[in-house]
Amino acid sequence: MSMSPIGIVVVGAGRIGRMHAQIFARAPGARLAGIVDRHGRREWLIEAGLSQVPVFESTTEALEATSAEAAVIATSSTAHVELIREVTAAKRHVLCEKPVAFDSGQITALAEETRGFSGVIQVGYNRRFDPQFSQIRDAVQGGELGRIYLYRIVNRDPLRPPADFIPRSGGMLADFHCHDMDMLRFLSGDEVAEIHARGAQLIADEAMRDDLDAVVLSLRMADGALAGVDGLRETNCGYDQRIEVVGEQGQRCAQNIPAHFVAGGSPAGSLHANPRPDFMTRYRESFEIQARAFLRAVRGECECKVTLADAAAAMRAVEAAQKSLQENRAVEI
Amino acid sequence: MSMSPIGIVVVGAGRIGRMHAQIFARAPGARLAGIVDRHGRREWLIEAGLSQVPVFESTTEALEATSAEAAVIATSSTAHVELIREVTAAKRHVLCEKPVAFDSGQITALAEETRGFSGVIQVGYNRRFDPQFSQIRDAVQGGELGRIYLYRIVNRDPLRPPADFIPRSGGMLADFHCHDMDMLRFLSGDEVAEIHARGAQLIADEAMRDDLDAVVLSLRMADGALAGVDGLRETNCGYDQRIEVVGEQGQRCAQNIPAHFVAGGSPAGSLHANPRPDFMTRYRESFEIQARAFLRAVRGECECKVTLADAAAAMRAVEAAQKSLQENRAVEI
Amino acid sequence: MSMSPIGIVVVGAGRIGRMHAQIFARAPGARLAGIVDRHGRREWLIEAGLSQVPVFESTTEALEATSAEAAVIATSSTAHVELIREVTAAKRHVLCEKPVAFDSGQITALAEETRGFSGVIQVGYNRRFDPQFSQIRDAVQGGELGRIYLYRIVNRDPLRPPADFIPRSGGMLADFHCHDMDMLRFLSGDEVAEIHARGAQLIADEAMRDDLDAVVLSLRMADGALAGVDGLRETNCGYDQRIEVVGEQGQRCAQNIPAHFVAGGSPAGSLHANPRPDFMTRYRESFEIQARAFLRAVRGECECKVTLADAAAAMRAVEAAQKSLQENRAVEI
Amino acid sequence: MSMSPIGIVVVGAGRIGRMHAQIFARAPGARLAGIVDRHGRREWLIEAGLSQVPVFESTTEALEATSAEAAVIATSSTAHVELIREVTAAKRHVLCEKPVAFDSGQITALAEETRGFSGVIQVGYNRRFDPQFSQIRDAVQGGELGRIYLYRIVNRDPLRPPADFIPRSGGMLADFHCHDMDMLRFLSGDEVAEIHARGAQLIADEAMRDDLDAVVLSLRMADGALAGVDGLRETNCGYDQRIEVVGEQGQRCAQNIPAHFVAGGSPAGSLHANPRPDFMTRYRESFEIQARAFLRAVRGECECKVTLADAAAAMRAVEAAQKSLQENRAVEI
Repeated sequence: MSMSPIGIVVVGAGRIGRMHAQIFARAPGARLAGIVDRHGRREWLIEAGLSQVPVFESTTEALEATSAEAAVIATSSTAHVELIREVTAAKRHVLCEKPVAFDSGQITALAEETRGFSGVIQVGYNRRFDPQFSQIRDAVQGGELGRIYLYRIVNRDPLRPPADFIPRSGGMLADFHCHDMDMLRFLSGDEVAEIHARGAQLIADEAMRDDLDAVVLSLRMADGALAGVDGLRETNCGYDQRIEVVGEQGQRCAQNIPAHFVAGGSPAGSLHANPRPDFMTRYRESFEIQARAFLRAVRGECECKVTLADAAAAMRAVEAAQKSLQENRAVEI
Repeated sequence: MSMSPIGIVVVGAGRIGRMHAQIFARAPGARLAGIVDRHGRREWLIEAGLSQVPVFESTTEALEATSAEAAVIATSSTAHVELIREVTAAKRHVLCEKPVAFDSGQITALAEETRGFSGVIQVGYNRRFDPQFSQIRDAVQGGELGRIYLYRIVNRDPLRPPADFIPRSGGMLADFHCHDMDMLRFLSGDEVAEIHARGAQLIADEAMRDDLDAVVLSLRMADGALAGVDGLRETNCGYDQRIEVVGEQGQRCAQNIPAHFVAGGSPAGSLHANPRPDFMTRYRESFEIQARAFLRAVRGECECKVTLADAAAAMRAVEAAQKSLQENRAVEI
Repeated sequence: MSMSPIGIVVVGAGRIGRMHAQIFARAPGARLAGIVDRHGRREWLIEAGLSQVPVFESTTEALEATSAEAAVIATSSTAHVELIREVTAAKRHVLCEKPVAFDSGQITALAEETRGFSGVIQVGYNRRFDPQFSQIRDAVQGGELGRIYLYRIVNRDPLRPPADFIPRSGGMLADFHCHDMDMLRFLSGDEVAEIHARGAQLIADEAMRDDLDAVVLSLRMADGALAGVDGLRETNCGYDQRIEVVGEQGQRCAQNIPAHFVAGGSPAGSLHANPRPDFMTRYRESFEIQARAFLRAVRGECECKVTLADAAAAMRAVEAAQKSLQENRAVEI
Repeated sequence: MSMSPIGIVVVGAGRIGRMHAQIFARAPGARLAGIVDRHGRREWLIEAGLSQVPVFESTTEALEATSAEAAVIATSSTAHVELIREVTAAKRHVLCEKPVAFDSGQITALAEETRGFSGVIQVGYNRRFDPQFSQIRDAVQGGELGRIYLYRIVNRDPLRPPADFIPRSGGMLADFHCHDMDMLRFLSGDEVAEIHARGAQLIADEAMRDDLDAVVLSLRMADGALAGVDGLRETNCGYDQRIEVVGEQGQRCAQNIPAHFVAGGSPAGSLHANPRPDFMTRYRESFEIQARAFLRAVRGECECKVTLADAAAAMRAVEAAQKSLQENRAVEI
């Protein structure tokens, strides 16, 4: 660790961009070199004790001015592909938020196009780095559970998204359930082979009218194992994120992480905390581990853990789900 | 309660028949009048302290000889319809195990045929009487959860059934998931409107080759709420029976009932009991409450809680699932 | 089991007497022969479906009239010794509720006096028969935990007792914590060697002025292991009954048994059921197993599990606690 | 937050000193100015990405050379008093690890001596800053639980301390249970009035022969509420840290925080993680919040949360426990 720290530019200063910035600012072996934000906002940097970090209007300018080795792309999804092109053209490593694009073909084309790039292009499927989920994957792929019968994922948001997010979200299947498609691939080391998707609009809110808000997915993996996923845009009981895997020899269940550990007793019963309330608190650790994995990959100490090929495969499963929804039948991938 | 106890004849002396016999033998207001068992077995009665209970070869003979007012039918499912005819023809009340038949049309025809019968014909969907599930139903139908978004049922057997059961079981969807179809109707007060079924043979056991052993169901209720069900014939971790309902205003989860309440600590972690191991232990209380509800219905103190119409509706949903499985598309009911 | 059932007379028809009556009425191998109740109450028998059971004014009369082989003594504690004398004089077996007497010397004298009696005299320390606590004892005495460091007992009533109970209770230490003294002996197979007792009157209720309502006990077992006990007459959060044992090699914790298994979710958190609300629901199973153990002892199939010597030993520890309370120092036994 | 960051010198570079250093290095509004370590060790700083932080041989030198405004004292307890004198003489703020001294009189004298010092002297009873325990204190002192009946603290180390720690630890009561004395004062806002202490040497380890390894404390608070504490130097099942408070109107329980949230199912049962394994992981958050509270106090934004008077009061209770242990009777404070 006598190497100099790796300079990081974070592109995009919304909720996720700010989180990445704070994580890389404190990650051993990293240096937060700059922020790219067309709005030039600085208040949040001051509040976070990062007032010395410069803010730029363009990514290329930021990379040049700071001599940063890598960029973290955390803009709207629609800008991801173009920014990956820009960063890799500048010969910098990239960690790009998911989804890379809403069209798997576009991701595959990008993978093709950047084949000659010798740096790291890591996709931000952060949940792979959650210690709970990693532990389950190790059990599955290490054979501890024997033949896998069933994967079950619960993916329920605590509160409906802001109204202006829906139109640019890519839709619930692409924005939300792409995580589950990636998780099934990650846990199993296998591909999703067939999917049936069911969706509904159940939240009484005009702003939600352009998208689904409830989803039930039924899947078959290539090795024959079954999977079920359910998703809700709002539950009002915390951020419900559970995974179960049942196999011939045993099972593993990643339970929710409570927001705290105080139980309150009264004649009505014992009140326990809801799950941690949002992805920033629930998945904070996974984002931090993801950052460390990215830094290791940049230093050549390990392979890139989530590739464009992974991103394309997840999106292909999403597209099959979208087709299934339209045709109300199971769709093979 | 100054009335004389209601005489009960139990038809069938397999595992479920013996359980019904012991429950009615101890139910206040009931009298276990006799057993119908072609094999004439008596040892289990002696072991259960019921040595004075007579065993008969035919149902009609048993009802006449004992002057019993009611029969509990607990034979193989294929004999149910004919026995209901026989008991009602003898003007006796009947509690018949589920499924009444594997063909919903046959159940509907039987309902039509017995329309003039003034006694009780109750169907043994015992899980409706489980206090946990009843409590959830009350929350759903009492509006405590607001608009319902999602029902989730986990229905996983601990151990694969005996090899000779599969051929006469009617198949996993009819034998196993008919409970879930009934439960969705019970919880919601609504009908299943559409179903997609996915199944697989994952257990490496030649004896299981004639049936599915893993199922994922995706459903839509008539009011638009979604539902997901998964079923496994074997998990090796106890009898996993959970129900979740998520609504706009809150949620309810019927958790498993542990086999005991001792946690064991060691460096490896804290070991807690698996769920109660089988339907006899997990659902014992529901069978007892079912018996008391039947006795009250017989005495005219309440309506029959589970009718032939209910049994037919559950089987229609099963038939839609069977069709979905063949055609790999969602099927409306 | 071809033997004729053992006739049982229950002496005392208060809350506990009625429970014993119902348990023996349904216990395989037993026959509820009669009730001794000076008040001659019969309504509760009718309600329990036991209208055929005769009620007597005296124990001797009941034993003779019914030819019962055994009596269950469930009167006020002050009558226990005399009734044991009466029943054993009639050469009948006896199961007597705890405490046998508030004076250990009196219990020892009774044990001496009945030394020649060839029947069973079992004392009603029912908690020994709780499956959770038995499982812990087996772990302790089977060496699974290695050397024992610490026993922890939580013994908290949900609601203060009826006002008229306090004066005849013998006081909280004798009435309530005698169970804990017996439990420590049962779990450890060892004797309590030294005790410090601390008590307080914290409940703002004039009717509670003649007794403690909060107790903390600190104990040393003969083998050197430590123990801590706390007791409360009222918690308002269900009947809190927990036991922990920590040893060199591991630990065991008997957790509370929830009143039900439905979790309710809301923005405030997840509401779980309180422990079962009272000793009738929490310890029902232990009373049933106690009854079966008594019947087996009567039939000579096993030894008597809880003797007068056990009752005297528990009361000696209670007396040491009483002395400690007065002198505010640890007292050896 | 436009103020320049507060310079911090950490005195002592053992396990706790290193933790403080890393916390202040990342705390917003702080600057890790230097380390005082007679051994001059630097490797751990490099590993922690803090290679630019200078290491000094003496505290006064470090404060002068770095112009730091504050020192964190994390040496052996025996050096604490002298170091507080040195730092306050240099007119720097101080955060000193507990216990300040093993003699309450010495702490009181130091408080007297530093009365004229206008800076902050905060004592490191970090557990006061644990969010779980703070939440319980708010419930107690906000009156949510009504009159308090009972406090219960479980304070069990996972593994016996290193052999060389025992002789300089001050003994289990001073080193270990001073936390509990402080916690009872913190939760209740009241003083410990009387204490009975029981201790034992149960761990079969020659290195532990100079100290207790198992403790049971029984206490009375000034307002009459009772308290029970148990402590073990080794349990082998994780770091067991629980607090319960029972009041007239309800109760609160700070449960253990599991090391992870994956449950593993097998025929033997469901295996859950043990509590977080040590104070560094269990109380990490409390140390961070303690650091932020100290920085706020230094900036004059809040009062000092844990004073020398608090430290003296905790140690007086410890001394009463030590006396009780010798005399085997309850000792008033």
